Amino acid sequence: MNSIEHSPLARKLSAFATLSKDELAVLTQLHQRRKTFAAGCDLVHQGQPGQAAYILASGWACSYKIQPEGSRQIVDFQIPGDFLGLRSVLLRTSDHSIEPVVEIEAAEVMADDLLGAFADTPRLAAAILWAASRDEAMVVEHLVGLGRRDADARMAHFLLELGARLAFVGLGSKEGYACPLTQYHLADALGLTAVHVNRVLRQLRERKLVTFREGHVKFGDIDRLMEMADFDPAYLDQTGPLLK
Amino acid sequence: MNSIEHSPLARKLSAFATLSKDELAVLTQLHQRRKTFAAGCDLVHQGQPGQAAYILASGWACSYKIQPEGSRQIVDFQIPGDFLGLRSVLLRTSDHSIEPVVEIEAAEVMADDLLGAFADTPRLAAAILWAASRDEAMVVEHLVGLGRRDADARMAHFLLELGARLAFVGLGSKEGYACPLTQYHLADALGLTAVHVNRVLRQLRERKLVTFREGHVKFGDIDRLMEMADFDPAYLDQTGPLLK
Repeated sequence: MNSIEHSPLARKLSAFATLSKDELAVLTQLHQRRKTFAAGCDLVHQGQPGQAAYILASGWACSYKIQPEGSRQIVDFQIPGDFLGLRSVLLRTSDHSIEPVVEIEAAEVMADDLLGAFADTPRLAAAILWAASRDEAMVVEHLVGLGRRDADARMAHFLLELGARLAFVGLGSKEGYACPLTQYHLADALGLTAVHVNRVLRQLRERKLVTFREGHVKFGDIDRLMEMADFDPAYLDQTGPLLK
Repeated sequence: MNSIEHSPLARKLSAFATLSKDELAVLTQLHQRRKTFAAGCDLVHQGQPGQAAYILASGWACSYKIQPEGSRQIVDFQIPGDFLGLRSVLLRTSDHSIEPVVEIEAAEVMADDLLGAFADTPRLAAAILWAASRDEAMVVEHLVGLGRRDADARMAHFLLELGARLAFVGLGSKEGYACPLTQYHLADALGLTAVHVNRVLRQLRERKLVTFREGHVKFGDIDRLMEMADFDPAYLDQTGPLLK
C-alpha cells in the first residue's frame, strides 16, 4: 500500500514537523482529487481569477511569467511533493502560469480545503507556511543568481539546488538525478540563450564538474562544484524536524 | 487611541479577510514587544539560526543577501505593515539579512507566538499565508525585472509597486510618496550601478513620467508610466476582502 507517510509532500513536511495521525489524515484528504495533466498544457493561468492549487504527486512542472513582448521568465521548477500555484489560490488573480514539463499527476486543492485544513490542524498550517517560505527562499536564490552570479555559477547553483531537492524526496543522490528539462527550459530559467546554455554545460563537463546529457544530471566533483557556485543548502532547510 | 484596526498590518490583512474581534485581539498580542532599531544596524542576520520575525510599525527596511565577493543584492523593501524575516522564523537558518533604511519601530514575533496565533485563529493563519504569498509575488516580479525588463521599465515598475503598496496602508497617493531610499539602495535592488540609476532617473524625469528628488517620488503621468512598465497591480491583491 502506498501510504501517505511516504508521499513526497509528507516526506518534505517532515523536515519541519513530525506529523501526527490527525495531520496525516488531513493530508490524505488534500490528496483526494487526483488528476493527470499532459506536458505543455497549462494548469494554472497567469491573470485568471479563482484558480485552484495542486499538490504534485509525480512528474515535473514549471511556473513562469510571459512578458508583453512574448519572452518567458521561468520562476521555478516543481518536483513531486511541491505545491503548484499555492500563491494563486490565496491571491485573487494568479500572477503566473504553471505548465507540466512532462505528464504529471497532481491533486487539486481549493481555497476552502486549505482553510478547512488550517482550522482542523494548525500545525499543518504552520508546515504549509514553512513550505511556502522555502519556496520563496528558492525564488530569492534565483533572483540573486540573475542579479549577481555569472552564467557558470548560476547554472551550477541551479543544478545543485535541484539535486538537493530531489534527493530529499527520494528522487536523486549525491551521484546525480534524472532530469526531463531541455536547454530551452534552462535558458528561460537562467536568463540565458539556448546557445549560451549549451556552451556553459560544455565547459562544466570539460572541467569534469557535472554532466547533463540524455535526461540525466551526473555530478563529477560535487564538492568543487559547490565551491564554485558558493552553494550553501541551508535555505532548503532539510536537516530534520524543527517541531517534534 | 491608536487602535489595532488602524495599524498598517491590520489594514493590509483586511484586503484578504475582514478580521473578527478575536483575530484583532491576537494581532494586538503579536504587536506587544515593540523595539526601536537604528538605521543601518541589521536586525536579522543571514546565516544565523533562531532568528525572530518582526512586524514593521514605522519606517522602512530592506532585505538583502551578500554575495561571497562582497556585492549586495537587495531582495525587497519593507514598509509599515510588512513582516520582516517571516521566512527566517520558520526556516532554521535565516537565508537573508534585514537592515533598517531609517530608524524603525518593529514588534518582535517568535516562532511560538506565531504557532500559538495559528492554533487560536486559523483565519489569521490563512491571512498571514496570504501576506507571505503576496511578498513572494513581489519577489517574483523583481526576478522578472532582473531577467526580462530593461533598466527604464525596471525602475518604473519598482517605483509604481512601492507607490501602490504605500497608498494601500495610507502612506502615499496617486500623486506620489515620501521615499527615504538612496540611489545606492535602488542600484542594489535593480542590479544597476549608481551612475546608471542616476541616468535612468534623469530620463524618466525629462520625459515627465516620474520625478524622484529630495526624498520624494512624484508621479508626472502615472498612466503612461504604467503602460511603459507594463505594470498590472493585480499581484498585490489589494481590491477588498476575499473572506468576509
